[in-house]
Amino acid sequence: MSDIVRHHTSTRMSQAVEHNGVVYLAGQVGDDPTADVKTQTQQILDKIDTLLGECGTDKSRLLWAQLWVTDMRYFGAMNEVWDAWVSEGSAPARAGLCSALAGPDYKVEIMVMAAK
Amino acid sequence: MSDIVRHHTSTRMSQAVEHNGVVYLAGQVGDDPTADVKTQTQQILDKIDTLLGECGTDKSRLLWAQLWVTDMRYFGAMNEVWDAWVSEGSAPARAGLCSALAGPDYKVEIMVMAAK
Amino acid sequence: MSDIVRHHTSTRMSQAVEHNGVVYLAGQVGDDPTADVKTQTQQILDKIDTLLGECGTDKSRLLWAQLWVTDMRYFGAMNEVWDAWVSEGSAPARAGLCSALAGPDYKVEIMVMAAK
Repeated sequence: MSDIVRHHTSTRMSQAVEHNGVVYLAGQVGDDPTADVKTQTQQILDKIDTLLGECGTDKSRLLWAQLWVTDMRYFGAMNEVWDAWVSEGSAPARAGLCSALAGPDYKVEIMVMAAK
Repeated sequence: MSDIVRHHTSTRMSQAVEHNGVVYLAGQVGDDPTADVKTQTQQILDKIDTLLGECGTDKSRLLWAQLWVTDMRYFGAMNEVWDAWVSEGSAPARAGLCSALAGPDYKVEIMVMAAK
Repeated sequence: MSDIVRHHTSTRMSQAVEHNGVVYLAGQVGDDPTADVKTQTQQILDKIDTLLGECGTDKSRLLWAQLWVTDMRYFGAMNEVWDAWVSEGSAPARAGLCSALAGPDYKVEIMVMAAK
């Protein structure tokens, strides 16, 4: 068995990589880029829950997160959904940033690391 | 004792998370957003020193850093304070980037990882 | 022997840091900032190959990557070079982002982590 386990691996990226007790997720975007900020954020967090589950862990073991919005006016709506999702007492180290994203309609992207 | 130790944990984030010999700090911003770039950078580095100390480590054990300015014109002033702060021979892997930040007056944000 | 091994360390940053089985590389930019996006990307990936080799690992063991372009119009050209470079079946967790970079002519920067 390899010491690196990859999940949903394409030519470009793996959606999750496990190594040495740490899970690295790819930056996640919403399934529906036309949806509003809160809906995109919830879709992202649902995808993170699923990927963490496939790696045998969950959001209570988050270590690190970076969150991007394409416009800081979206920051409050994203945070509202994020805050409601985080496990009580288990919030990761985090930075909230601003960036253009891969698709022009994406408004939010979130990338996390978690302990196995 | 849990294998994950969190410090200064709110609903949104922990200021520091320890796991498996690595310390992950949240992105730090200055205490005084109205201060100039050098002052904000020094405030950030002071906060990083304090947080690393609470985790039983220090800046000589930095592994990784990302630094953001809101305008690349601030990059030189930030680097001047950063360069004076880094422990000789112990600089981390680093990327210097540009992003809008959570508060409109913040000019600098720095996020690091360190070994315990 | 220290538990942290640093490579090409300046006052500001190390180009590579090894700790606990993980290699952290600094954000890499092209050698020739006047070159086009594809050429800059290839120069970056060549530098990453060299640095990973100096740390006793290679691109088949990538864990995590962040890639920045200064303009999302460059994203497709960067991805084309990236996709051709990644080891089959070994793509890292990844986020593709947008940021101004340290030099005004740099169009691409890439930062990775790999397993030893």
